[in-house]
Amino acid sequence: MPILVMKFGGTSVATLDRIRRAAKRVGREVANGYDVIVIVSAMAGETNKLVGFVDETGPFFDAREYDAVVSSGENVTAGLMALTLQEMDVPARSWQGWQVPLKTTSAHASARIEEIPPENIMAKFDEGMKVAVVAGFQGISPEGRITTLGRGGSDTTAVAFAAAFGAERCDIYTDVDGVYTTDPRIADKARKLDRIAFEEMLELASLGAKVLQTRSVELAMRYKVKLRVLSSFGDMDESVGTLVCDEEDIVESKVVAGVAYSRDEAKMTLISVADRPGIAAAIFGPLSEAGVNVDMIVQNISEEGRTDMTFSCPTDQVARAEKAMEEAKAKGDINFHGIIADTDVAKVSVVGIGMRSHTGVAAKMFKVLSDDGINIKVITTSEIKISVLIDRKYMELAVQALHDAFELDKVA
Amino acid sequence: MPILVMKFGGTSVATLDRIRRAAKRVGREVANGYDVIVIVSAMAGETNKLVGFVDETGPFFDAREYDAVVSSGENVTAGLMALTLQEMDVPARSWQGWQVPLKTTSAHASARIEEIPPENIMAKFDEGMKVAVVAGFQGISPEGRITTLGRGGSDTTAVAFAAAFGAERCDIYTDVDGVYTTDPRIADKARKLDRIAFEEMLELASLGAKVLQTRSVELAMRYKVKLRVLSSFGDMDESVGTLVCDEEDIVESKVVAGVAYSRDEAKMTLISVADRPGIAAAIFGPLSEAGVNVDMIVQNISEEGRTDMTFSCPTDQVARAEKAMEEAKAKGDINFHGIIADTDVAKVSVVGIGMRSHTGVAAKMFKVLSDDGINIKVITTSEIKISVLIDRKYMELAVQALHDAFELDKVA
Repeated sequence: MPILVMKFGGTSVATLDRIRRAAKRVGREVANGYDVIVIVSAMAGETNKLVGFVDETGPFFDAREYDAVVSSGENVTAGLMALTLQEMDVPARSWQGWQVPLKTTSAHASARIEEIPPENIMAKFDEGMKVAVVAGFQGISPEGRITTLGRGGSDTTAVAFAAAFGAERCDIYTDVDGVYTTDPRIADKARKLDRIAFEEMLELASLGAKVLQTRSVELAMRYKVKLRVLSSFGDMDESVGTLVCDEEDIVESKVVAGVAYSRDEAKMTLISVADRPGIAAAIFGPLSEAGVNVDMIVQNISEEGRTDMTFSCPTDQVARAEKAMEEAKAKGDINFHGIIADTDVAKVSVVGIGMRSHTGVAAKMFKVLSDDGINIKVITTSEIKISVLIDRKYMELAVQALHDAFELDKVA
Repeated sequence: MPILVMKFGGTSVATLDRIRRAAKRVGREVANGYDVIVIVSAMAGETNKLVGFVDETGPFFDAREYDAVVSSGENVTAGLMALTLQEMDVPARSWQGWQVPLKTTSAHASARIEEIPPENIMAKFDEGMKVAVVAGFQGISPEGRITTLGRGGSDTTAVAFAAAFGAERCDIYTDVDGVYTTDPRIADKARKLDRIAFEEMLELASLGAKVLQTRSVELAMRYKVKLRVLSSFGDMDESVGTLVCDEEDIVESKVVAGVAYSRDEAKMTLISVADRPGIAAAIFGPLSEAGVNVDMIVQNISEEGRTDMTFSCPTDQVARAEKAMEEAKAKGDINFHGIIADTDVAKVSVVGIGMRSHTGVAAKMFKVLSDDGINIKVITTSEIKISVLIDRKYMELAVQALHDAFELDKVA
């Protein structure tokens, strides 16, 4: 039998009624001839409740115990999903991470998956079981303790199972019906994409599109797992969602696939830094050690041996970045005249694998923004992405203008 | 180090504050020089919530999935208790049933404990861990599935651990401060007992005193585990609770230790049964097969080859008992003229190991009841117990009168 992996997030299993609706979708795929591995999250709100309990115990906690506590929500959903499927006469059983076993590193609360031996579950498929319901987000360490995979862990669990079992596809059921050209709340012309390439999805995910977690997309790309994002709320036969797939499987050939944005960016400038070899390392080494996620970097033209160094980082890391810089200055490692932090900025990006072969995307992007009087503060590019930092008040305008200019509302 | 087992029930761990109070008691025993095994229940209400979820999935459910779901409440408490102890600088870690491993039969939802290998936990004690927090009520089957132990499972877990680890004592923390001569809500002269013999506790537990679950007392008696019942709510230094122990360890020598009662009894009479050899088997065989728990049995003197057969059973089994009798009659296995079910009765019992060596307890009991005009409907006795069935309206009066007559308010 071909194998299908289906993952249901917290809102898709928030109540017994929703679990029943999800189970119906599973039952339909069984009727279609699949052996199905279902990955479930905890019922919406449960994990937060458990994290709240752990936080109440005190400020510093043993991540091993944290994992033992917060993983329990998924166990409940897995059992309930198996029971619901059985009630529909679909042979199913639940598996907790340690029962599979889903083997991980010992990095509790953010463990990495090391191995998923398929033997135990395959043996049950061979005996006639049609659905293995697996508690997402959790595994077992080499020491036999329960681990959790950190943010987005259930998506990652799903993709890892699809890879380990050679699944035909991994369907991620969520509360949106696919990946859009941009956020429909900002641009009402936003259009759902039928397909998107792994590389594009990866850029969009890391740029703030919350529909899939970055790690799960990375994993899918590495193991060539066809990933589909679709809604668990729509009509069962209408939602086809968005297929995240290999570049070669994409028929439509737009240069730009989507426009992403992030409000959560700050621009920091070190004024009049002594410009010498090794200065970048002297600045970004301490920032990295302080846990600051530096994104964009711009170095101005040097005048008389001094330069301004500008970088961006998440807004909530500004204080940490300032502290790290002042400490490096106090130690004599770097020298600057002042720090300017601008938290009133936003990042807007255009993403598309077509940019590899098409020129002129950057020029067009800059012209569109310029035509609307939007000043660009920092620019970074990758092979398939151009990001700019602009004043936050222009963010919505920039997204809409770029969406229009690249005609993303039209099918290629 | 000597080992102590401490068990905290659902109300004792209902909130983080209560978990903290329980953890303080554990910390004090560690300071007293013990290595401690803590058995925890789910936070009050959690297990019922999970059972409700399972019930919602449908009327017939796979007990293996039921166990996977309902066991998760204890896992949460175990992790939170370990975290709370760590926060108090007490080296602790949590253990789920499968991690110990607590090996059980495959009788899901009412599994029996088969073995608790102490090696894993002892190795951690040897490394300096002071407290092993174990999720109660759960274990692992030979097939590697999660099992639960059924009603009172956490008490049973605690006693089994005490036996397996040769613990000095097993302390059961609950919401009452010990075992009483009778229910204080009925007789305000009820007195807390400092000690009670296993056999007495067993009779009281099975007679409806809800402080300890029957199975846990049986287990404690078999393995000679000293069991103490005490409150987790009182002042830490005042509550000494009640010690359930071997007969030889009891100093005070009352003939009667306590008066128990049960409202949940019905009296059933089969009128004019043909009296022949094997008639008892013909009646009580079908009742047993129908799952009716027959308690007391009385057969009237036979007249002209016919007799009346009276027995008692729990009130909620009356319909089942009637059905079983009518079916047996229809098949021709038994013959009777009618069934009378009296659900307006109650059982009152006096219990005491001293009854083995003292005569006259029954006579005194019957006289006390007679003096108050209470008619006795059925009598049963064991070596250390006399039970009578009376009209329910006299129950409180009977309990109070017997408590007074046997001077249970006075220390021996």
